[in-house]
Amino acid sequence: MDSAHLSGGGQLPRALAFDVFGTVVDWHGGIAHEAAAIAARHGIEGDWAAFANDWRAGYMPAMDKVRKGELPWTHIDTLHRMILEQIIERHGLGPLNEAERDHLNRAWHRLPPWPDAVPGLLRLKRRFTLTTLSNGNFSLLTEMAKHSGLPWDCVISAELFGHYKPDPETYLGCARLLDLTPSELMLVACHPADLRAARANGLRTGYVRRPLERGPATVLPTIGEGEFDLVADDFEQLADLLEPSPPAR
Amino acid sequence: MDSAHLSGGGQLPRALAFDVFGTVVDWHGGIAHEAAAIAARHGIEGDWAAFANDWRAGYMPAMDKVRKGELPWTHIDTLHRMILEQIIERHGLGPLNEAERDHLNRAWHRLPPWPDAVPGLLRLKRRFTLTTLSNGNFSLLTEMAKHSGLPWDCVISAELFGHYKPDPETYLGCARLLDLTPSELMLVACHPADLRAARANGLRTGYVRRPLERGPATVLPTIGEGEFDLVADDFEQLADLLEPSPPAR
Repeated sequence: MDSAHLSGGGQLPRALAFDVFGTVVDWHGGIAHEAAAIAARHGIEGDWAAFANDWRAGYMPAMDKVRKGELPWTHIDTLHRMILEQIIERHGLGPLNEAERDHLNRAWHRLPPWPDAVPGLLRLKRRFTLTTLSNGNFSLLTEMAKHSGLPWDCVISAELFGHYKPDPETYLGCARLLDLTPSELMLVACHPADLRAARANGLRTGYVRRPLERGPATVLPTIGEGEFDLVADDFEQLADLLEPSPPAR
Repeated sequence: MDSAHLSGGGQLPRALAFDVFGTVVDWHGGIAHEAAAIAARHGIEGDWAAFANDWRAGYMPAMDKVRKGELPWTHIDTLHRMILEQIIERHGLGPLNEAERDHLNRAWHRLPPWPDAVPGLLRLKRRFTLTTLSNGNFSLLTEMAKHSGLPWDCVISAELFGHYKPDPETYLGCARLLDLTPSELMLVACHPADLRAARANGLRTGYVRRPLERGPATVLPTIGEGEFDLVADDFEQLADLLEPSPPAR
């Protein structure tokens, strides 16, 4: 347990808001697997781990165009499809027809949870309100939860605010919808930049390491000592850290 | 089954959106019970069924003030509290202190489901995406679901649109968030006016009778023959009607 710590002695949060892509579900493995399957039907060979990373690499720049006003509000299904069209020929998937491209694009709705995610969430759900706080669109998050048994109490998406994380409207909007002060809400994420923005808006922060987010070659980000309220290796450890101490005898 | 019918031979909807107060949960019984309990602690006697009906009677006029722009956007917790203050003396509950008034106001977060609601929703959840579409605020609906085990796939509230039902923005906004056409979405409600507005916006409609909504003296509304796509006596019958026919042998 020396890799985990829970800083401060303050009160527990009342709700936990989870980043989803990478934090809860394995986008790298899920996309590589679905791309390999559809490619195999066409006899196409390729590096599907690299394909997954290329697709994901287009995500932040595309959202930034929306955040800067270069694009009107555009939801993630549409942004994913735009990026897919930019990389599809390079990866040899040009032969895919429209129905196959749409199906592949919706692989983001079917991403597999990390093995610890559902068991950890079920434990945490007994004590806390659990919501998503993801840039994924509302229908994507709802379908993913149904597909993979993610036991959210509610689904909150950047789409509800017309702003993508790390815009303040997302963190503050999430707290407002749950009728909580920012400090009563903890963001859980594997991305330090997301957590830093949450903290700047008064939320509490839980960092979960995901050393396979980009596959075996993932380089874990550097975080400062005591930078986040809580650091854990997975959702089971997150639940351990958020359990109250047993009563003194 | 002669009291039920499923009109037309069209395709099944893909998602079901549920009105909540009266349709899913028993506000009359829940409010009367909590009022009686808090009154008993003060030795106050009263007609708590009448109190519940009085409180509810203030609901539509209060929302109408928001809908007409006489009040800015105000969520249901606040409207409920405004109405409570108007009726509290009349029912002898003036002695309640601030903490007790707040607790009683939040009884709307703890309303008990009708006995058929959870079993019916669990059956329907296997086949359909299930959401709320209620004028209740987002945190109220989320807390109610957690309190009573309502197995929604997601929570959708009028609050997300800044419009109360029966404004079109609510029905169309619900379909948009779920990435569905209006005709792929069915509103389920025990209130014909809500269903008529949904239908006018292209949604399918399921009417569920709730003969005890206002207690034993409830007068069921009159509906036209074939006015709604589906009519059922409870959520179990709703699930029966939405089951596809067994395959021919």
